[in-house]
Amino acid sequence: MIRYFTEDGSEDTVNARMEGCTDPRLAEVMASLVKHLHAFAKEIQLTQQEWETGIDFLTRTGKICSDERQEVILLSDVLGFSMLVDAINNRHPAGATESTVFGPFHVADAPIRSMGDSISLDGKGESCLYSGKVLDLHGEPIEGACVDVWSDNADGFYDVQQPGVQPKWNNRGRFLTGKDGAYHFVGIKPVSYPIPDDGPVGQMLEQLGRHPYRPAHMHYLITAPGFHKLVTHTFVGGDAYLQSDAVFGVKSSLIAPFEPLQGAATKWHSPFNFVLTPMDAR
Amino acid sequence: MIRYFTEDGSEDTVNARMEGCTDPRLAEVMASLVKHLHAFAKEIQLTQQEWETGIDFLTRTGKICSDERQEVILLSDVLGFSMLVDAINNRHPAGATESTVFGPFHVADAPIRSMGDSISLDGKGESCLYSGKVLDLHGEPIEGACVDVWSDNADGFYDVQQPGVQPKWNNRGRFLTGKDGAYHFVGIKPVSYPIPDDGPVGQMLEQLGRHPYRPAHMHYLITAPGFHKLVTHTFVGGDAYLQSDAVFGVKSSLIAPFEPLQGAATKWHSPFNFVLTPMDAR
Repeated sequence: MIRYFTEDGSEDTVNARMEGCTDPRLAEVMASLVKHLHAFAKEIQLTQQEWETGIDFLTRTGKICSDERQEVILLSDVLGFSMLVDAINNRHPAGATESTVFGPFHVADAPIRSMGDSISLDGKGESCLYSGKVLDLHGEPIEGACVDVWSDNADGFYDVQQPGVQPKWNNRGRFLTGKDGAYHFVGIKPVSYPIPDDGPVGQMLEQLGRHPYRPAHMHYLITAPGFHKLVTHTFVGGDAYLQSDAVFGVKSSLIAPFEPLQGAATKWHSPFNFVLTPMDAR
Repeated sequence: MIRYFTEDGSEDTVNARMEGCTDPRLAEVMASLVKHLHAFAKEIQLTQQEWETGIDFLTRTGKICSDERQEVILLSDVLGFSMLVDAINNRHPAGATESTVFGPFHVADAPIRSMGDSISLDGKGESCLYSGKVLDLHGEPIEGACVDVWSDNADGFYDVQQPGVQPKWNNRGRFLTGKDGAYHFVGIKPVSYPIPDDGPVGQMLEQLGRHPYRPAHMHYLITAPGFHKLVTHTFVGGDAYLQSDAVFGVKSSLIAPFEPLQGAATKWHSPFNFVLTPMDAR
């Protein structure tokens, strides 16, 4: 079959060229991508100048990436694409805790701390007791779960964003549950912060009339033998940016209470239970 | 309206966030892009690992770009996206010569030469007489048309790819038509060549089972007062890659005869008439 390019059949012409592809999944993914990209250009009747703007934008987005900065992920995040991929790959049965984006600031092998320890090492911020249980779908406690937590400090930065300014492992730690499945630790009430907005993605957000802020949140990576790992946050209830998270990470089930305490060792208390999905449930 | 992220309504959640965008066309383009990108991920059930592969690919594609190399355009080209944008923006009435991709190797202000001059300055390749007329839709000659032509040399490289190796302006020139609308010049019969394939896009083509070659072609940029500019190629009839141009540039109407000559000053003759679209026709 001879197939020269035509506007109407453009996606078919391109996809017919992959007959020699020996990776059927790659061919399937690329065929779908080509189909939807061409549908986009046709629907919007993309102009030559808009195409040039897009080429320049993607070029700058790639070029600004470094070991410390991943602007392409940021682009995926602000288009809701990262959350969508997370949702597709982490469907869960009713009752299990929902997932959200992992984010770029996790550091593996944080110190394992004793229950009740504080992860705040810089003395900044409003102290908060985090407590709850790690449970299975039947409400039974999970023993031996690893609760890996991390948050920004009171200035809105993670320790890895401020090496030499913040103590190493500031606002990070891992806690292992006992028979009762319970965890409790002291951190700070996190603060909302802008994603890096001095690059192409920040410029795009501004042109779209969007702000770059994420609502305050505590990160959790919870693992336990026999269960799917859970990557999620709890969000600070009442945060001004809950309904406009720049990366669309908020799910209503993840908004946690932050209750003021009187005469206690910490200023706030945030209770939250996590429910893991067993390996055989999906 | 409070809209937290859900998998089903993901694209609506993202697009509802652009209410503050003061550029209606930008909002329209981005909303369509988000809709189609999300539809792609949902249709293909994109995995987390595939997402990571895509992020890494786009990052490397941006980072390899330089003043001499534009890998993002190359990506657009091999996905047929550049040809689609060209088609959308250059629809023409019946009878007008079709357009194709501009390509990255045009240089403005090439020397204006006299009709019949040779543009081949390096003495390489098989000489070819190019001739024909520049006409309007009624078949009337267009006087004062500028026929700007460029091709690779016999080694498959444009002069700008080999500064210091090829003479400056090798295989380039501009010719101005007289009352008869006719042009003729001497060049070489171009050769097929691979697009730059030592980067991410080349790796992708290999994984897709595609070769990186373009069929041999002569570039034309034809301008005349009162007419739309025409960006096109003529392709060498019989070229092995006509049906598999890596950038999908071939249209059947652009395949030109290359006739062998006996006892003539050039080895080949390629006749081709160009028909321009008047400004008021679209």
